Amino acid sequence: MIEFWFDFSSAYAFFAAAEIDDLAARTGRGLLWRPYMLGTAFKATGARGLSATPLKGDYARRDWARLARLKGLEFRLPPGHPKVALAATRAFYWIEDQAPDLAPAFARLVFRRYYTEGLDTSDLAAVAPLGAGLGLDPGALAAGAALPAIKERAKAISEEAVARGIFGSPFFIADGEPFWGHDRLPMVEDWLRRGGW
Amino acid sequence: MIEFWFDFSSAYAFFAAAEIDDLAARTGRGLLWRPYMLGTAFKATGARGLSATPLKGDYARRDWARLARLKGLEFRLPPGHPKVALAATRAFYWIEDQAPDLAPAFARLVFRRYYTEGLDTSDLAAVAPLGAGLGLDPGALAAGAALPAIKERAKAISEEAVARGIFGSPFFIADGEPFWGHDRLPMVEDWLRRGGW
Repeated sequence: MIEFWFDFSSAYAFFAAAEIDDLAARTGRGLLWRPYMLGTAFKATGARGLSATPLKGDYARRDWARLARLKGLEFRLPPGHPKVALAATRAFYWIEDQAPDLAPAFARLVFRRYYTEGLDTSDLAAVAPLGAGLGLDPGALAAGAALPAIKERAKAISEEAVARGIFGSPFFIADGEPFWGHDRLPMVEDWLRRGGW
Repeated sequence: MIEFWFDFSSAYAFFAAAEIDDLAARTGRGLLWRPYMLGTAFKATGARGLSATPLKGDYARRDWARLARLKGLEFRLPPGHPKVALAATRAFYWIEDQAPDLAPAFARLVFRRYYTEGLDTSDLAAVAPLGAGLGLDPGALAAGAALPAIKERAKAISEEAVARGIFGSPFFIADGEPFWGHDRLPMVEDWLRRGGW
């Protein structure tokens, strides 16, 4: 089993999302998408987002651009990046409750629209229309994502992350073993193939 | 040309140091070892050392242990890690002035002794005897590393790092392109072989 923990505003998670399905298929593992609010982890670690950090922010922007070239992915950093993607995260968990198979497709759509068109992932009114492309009623999605139980679930998931030592994005739990960072995907695959080192 | 920037107390730099010579040879590039004081960069980024960061510290200790197994390297985290490796850094630059070819050998020795025997890299009296194994007089090394000009050089190198956007350890400048982290070495090699992406 691979757990794929991420924040929708994490550019490195965008790159990981483009590779993780194939990696899970190649290694014959189930895959669980787990969007969470990285800000909850930042409170525990005292970290800040890359974009707001001197030196690291400049490096990260250069790194994302070259990764996009390397991987052949369309990538445009939205104005106002990073958004607080709480609306998209809540929408994900409502969809997962309704139709678990649709939730990863929704997540892939959110990533693509955020990093190519600047989708406002903090605004439920902007996020809900994405449901239509998956056969979900946007009105029902908007209402569902605003339910107290779903808000509580998104909060609890983020607290679960921190309680389990998950503090970054992307972060993988591969057959129980934690790996942090997009650049660890080759190691994740090696770990799964060999059953650890 | 590959510039290899690192702090002697960085465990990820220890792992990089074990691989960087071979990478430089495979890609036909010159290699410049550049120890610096990561604390100077932390002042610019507001970051803290991994070991002192909640969640990240636990993850890093687990990650170092499994990396050591994967790479077949002896690795023991010294009591009191991380030391402030200023004495070792100053000694490196005095040696570089005397005999440039010996400086990388000294750096490799510092890494090995720190991560297998807990060498006190903050104490010139502990560091200077390493010179003997390289044919250098320990007394001359101890006196040289304490010279005002060498102290100033170690400080200036750390300030140069920050001025050039170098904020982590290990950090590589490969044909002018910056890469941060031990797990980026495969990308560094790919970048050098292909002349960029």
